[in-house]
Amino acid sequence: MSIGLGLDVGGTKILACAVTGSGELVAETRVDSPKAPDRLLEALTEAADAIYSLLGADRADVAGVGVGVPSLVASDGTLYDSPNLPALEGLPVRQAFAERLAEMAALSGSGDKVWRLALDNDGTCAAAGELAFGAARGQSDAVILTLGTGIGGGITTGGRLLRGARGFAGEVGHMVIDPSGPKCHCGRVGCLEALASGSALALQARQAVREGRADRVLALAGGSLEAVRGEHVLGAALERDPTALALFARLADNLAIGIGNLVEVLDPGVVLLGGGMADAGPVLLEPTTAAFAATNRRGRGAQAVPIVLAELGPRAGAFGAAALGLGIVS
Amino acid sequence: MSIGLGLDVGGTKILACAVTGSGELVAETRVDSPKAPDRLLEALTEAADAIYSLLGADRADVAGVGVGVPSLVASDGTLYDSPNLPALEGLPVRQAFAERLAEMAALSGSGDKVWRLALDNDGTCAAAGELAFGAARGQSDAVILTLGTGIGGGITTGGRLLRGARGFAGEVGHMVIDPSGPKCHCGRVGCLEALASGSALALQARQAVREGRADRVLALAGGSLEAVRGEHVLGAALERDPTALALFARLADNLAIGIGNLVEVLDPGVVLLGGGMADAGPVLLEPTTAAFAATNRRGRGAQAVPIVLAELGPRAGAFGAAALGLGIVS
Repeated sequence: MSIGLGLDVGGTKILACAVTGSGELVAETRVDSPKAPDRLLEALTEAADAIYSLLGADRADVAGVGVGVPSLVASDGTLYDSPNLPALEGLPVRQAFAERLAEMAALSGSGDKVWRLALDNDGTCAAAGELAFGAARGQSDAVILTLGTGIGGGITTGGRLLRGARGFAGEVGHMVIDPSGPKCHCGRVGCLEALASGSALALQARQAVREGRADRVLALAGGSLEAVRGEHVLGAALERDPTALALFARLADNLAIGIGNLVEVLDPGVVLLGGGMADAGPVLLEPTTAAFAATNRRGRGAQAVPIVLAELGPRAGAFGAAALGLGIVS
Repeated sequence: MSIGLGLDVGGTKILACAVTGSGELVAETRVDSPKAPDRLLEALTEAADAIYSLLGADRADVAGVGVGVPSLVASDGTLYDSPNLPALEGLPVRQAFAERLAEMAALSGSGDKVWRLALDNDGTCAAAGELAFGAARGQSDAVILTLGTGIGGGITTGGRLLRGARGFAGEVGHMVIDPSGPKCHCGRVGCLEALASGSALALQARQAVREGRADRVLALAGGSLEAVRGEHVLGAALERDPTALALFARLADNLAIGIGNLVEVLDPGVVLLGGGMADAGPVLLEPTTAAFAATNRRGRGAQAVPIVLAELGPRAGAFGAAALGLGIVS
């Protein structure tokens, strides 16, 4: 049995999971995310050390390490475009971390054993996780949208990850779907992320509060406009608050446009919704599926593409990083 | 030397090319496109027969036949969604044509020789042609937009064609890029095809004529509003007519949004513009490149993706069909 160590670098924490080749979680821990660029290697090393320490007798089975980062990962292992973790910009991470891992393996008495190291975008890792162990198992072609503060994504085609010419593929959140829409932090206008992410939902909810239409959302945020976040809209939607449900319906309409575009371009066998916002479950899935069905142009001879919730939840990225470290997915 | 026969079924003609494995055109001919569903097999057989007859001594080198159709091609070889050639809907073409080819090979004295048969969407064929013999040669990841009456497309990733789960990938013309845009014939609103195709350009030009802003375009169309087509806008643009140039600029803005979305999702090494409208050359390419550069969010560490004209012109689909028939591209 081989074990992969998967490290998923989030905005506040690095989630570290030790996962077997059949997708069993052996150990799990968290360390703080780096706040300064020169701390990333330390933080990754700390996370790898922490999860490795938890393994006990299973340590000898570790065969690979995977890292997911909220950045574009160039083919040479340098990171770019980390709006949600700017500290990562321009870092040549892969080679430096490989050296740290080699030191770690030597110190831990693993001798000459070389761990395979994979470094990928977090959306790509989430797609890898769901492909290897989750809702895309057995599918050759799938897309996952990771819906959180931003919108990331990962694509598999022909049973492999689609990385593109420079390693930057899968940035589904930055498809422009409405040129008269709101400005995106990427500098453009009307990106899917600016319309259907958790932060977009929060902005829309704050506007509704200002207009006096979202008392329940405001109450769940403790009465503070500035404190309103996507989770408060979700809480209100679960109570069937009409304003919150309307906000989810609008989000679903935009999400359905993005999904429709991905279906036209990629023809996936399944579309997965993952990331923190997928915790909303049916509150997100039902209006999205309905909006997609209403605009889906495939009536003749082709079944509609199923939209489902991802299965691995917040562990998708770490599981996928582990699968990439093990070489189960490539 | 192997020869592939490539048949590209267009709205009015089937273009048939005989192409060597190194991309040399050996023979070329055209037959009428079928006007009724029960005529497609006859027309394909006629086209295959016509090009085969032209080959003379080279006939023994024929190793495969490829067919490109303006339809979605399901994995079982059935055709769907042929808005520009409705006669093709629902036809189980691949198997039936394979039987015709076997008969043809037998009649022509080729004996037991079995020709490989490929059947694909015309955009996919164009991508295959440019990948094998044209502007995407040597690129592992490329996208072609075929700009004509409609907008089709084809995608290569990792050196292979991206077909998707059901064979329907690459429908780049039906990305929705403006929900407040014009209605598309597919039934949805704001598709790239409804904003940046040749027929969209003609509609916009007719509107400009009605508003008295497009005298030169109208003159080139012989003074008839109904006769205004994309080619008349192109003619006026080549004369630097301001209205025609403004129409191309608007088209380029929309095209750049579509290209940007494809770059975010697929990260191609190159984007090709093909199809009849690519005959516009710099009149199309320059504003598109400028609009793409103005909105491209990749500044840090990544070069902008080059946008270039396809090289094979109207033969891209037939060359690609031949390459697929030969198995050079898959």
